Amino acid sequence: MSVKILTIKEDILGANTENAKGNEELVDKHHILMINITSSPGAGKTSLIMQTIGRLKEKARMAVIEGDIASSIDADKVSGEGIPAIQINTAGACHLDANMIRKALDNLDLDHTDLIVIENVGNLICPAEFALGAHKQVLILSVPEGDDKPHKYPLMFTQADVILINKTDVLPHFDFNMSAFSKAVSGLNPAAAVYPISAKTGEGLEQWFSWLWDALEQRKV
Amino acid sequence: MSVKILTIKEDILGANTENAKGNEELVDKHHILMINITSSPGAGKTSLIMQTIGRLKEKARMAVIEGDIASSIDADKVSGEGIPAIQINTAGACHLDANMIRKALDNLDLDHTDLIVIENVGNLICPAEFALGAHKQVLILSVPEGDDKPHKYPLMFTQADVILINKTDVLPHFDFNMSAFSKAVSGLNPAAAVYPISAKTGEGLEQWFSWLWDALEQRKV
Repeated sequence: MSVKILTIKEDILGANTENAKGNEELVDKHHILMINITSSPGAGKTSLIMQTIGRLKEKARMAVIEGDIASSIDADKVSGEGIPAIQINTAGACHLDANMIRKALDNLDLDHTDLIVIENVGNLICPAEFALGAHKQVLILSVPEGDDKPHKYPLMFTQADVILINKTDVLPHFDFNMSAFSKAVSGLNPAAAVYPISAKTGEGLEQWFSWLWDALEQRKV
Repeated sequence: MSVKILTIKEDILGANTENAKGNEELVDKHHILMINITSSPGAGKTSLIMQTIGRLKEKARMAVIEGDIASSIDADKVSGEGIPAIQINTAGACHLDANMIRKALDNLDLDHTDLIVIENVGNLICPAEFALGAHKQVLILSVPEGDDKPHKYPLMFTQADVILINKTDVLPHFDFNMSAFSKAVSGLNPAAAVYPISAKTGEGLEQWFSWLWDALEQRKV
């Protein structure tokens, strides 16, 4: 039975990869940068997005696609800031897929958008297997989760273009070894940018804004 | 395509449920209590297990089954305490299944075991769909993850027999609304026991030990 499942999974993943390419072509045609933010539940994806809206909304036209199993808590927060927000409820599925993103793109005004931020379902596993067509993969790992996570969830850490270590404001209260974490990340993915931040206090966010702004500028060329 | 996936999923889940029943019958035959601990990555499953070993190992013969995508970090910690530990590496799968548990049971000395603790893969989604044959479902939600998680991951919260709110030692540093959390849990699962704990400082663990001891006593009747 395990072989059968594998075949099915390959079919699903193959079809998804095709759909993801279509998404990327669509946003490229509109000169949009699309980023995919992943993390465990509660690591700070929405807080980072709220900070990014506050900083960039006057400089870039943003839209947000929110993925959740249930609820529209996050999309409500984002649209409260006047940013177009689409909530995808996955009805139990542990990740967003390219087809869901396509439906969201069809509901956005792509001619008047510079940056699309996708907030994936809170999960360090399944989202790594499903391409969405995003140009950049953003991974958040929060201090309370511990420094051993790259060893336990290697695929997610291998794929990230940037890794944000969030909740540095509580570092004194946790046994988080920053150098052990950095060493584990370097072993898997030496090219990834790694920035310690606090989406709560704003500490370290300049590096993130600068990274994102550079990526935006590159898209506009 | 979505219908096809659904059918396959039902087949897999149906076969898994049958296997889970077999596991439960096997441990029942040996008068063993088997519990399944789930949480997000880094919420404190291993810390809780280490505390539980420290408290119960003289009173009950324990064994631990560890689930991870990769690495044997957790099984190494447990076996360091002299407790039989089996590490299951799921090779990418986002949850343990009943068949994996059966293989682990076949490698344990069931005639000389009272309590089997399963530490599932760190994930608030997929493990809720795959029965393992455990008698009790234990869910840990840690304070840094936030009080809105029952709304976002309802299935997991609905299935739990006991919900442990871990890392209460850092409550002053986070905006965690205990009454909002309790209200959300009551709406989904009024029968669940909810205990605030700190697996780090030991605060509140007496309620957990007492709950677990009662469950163990009931099995032995």
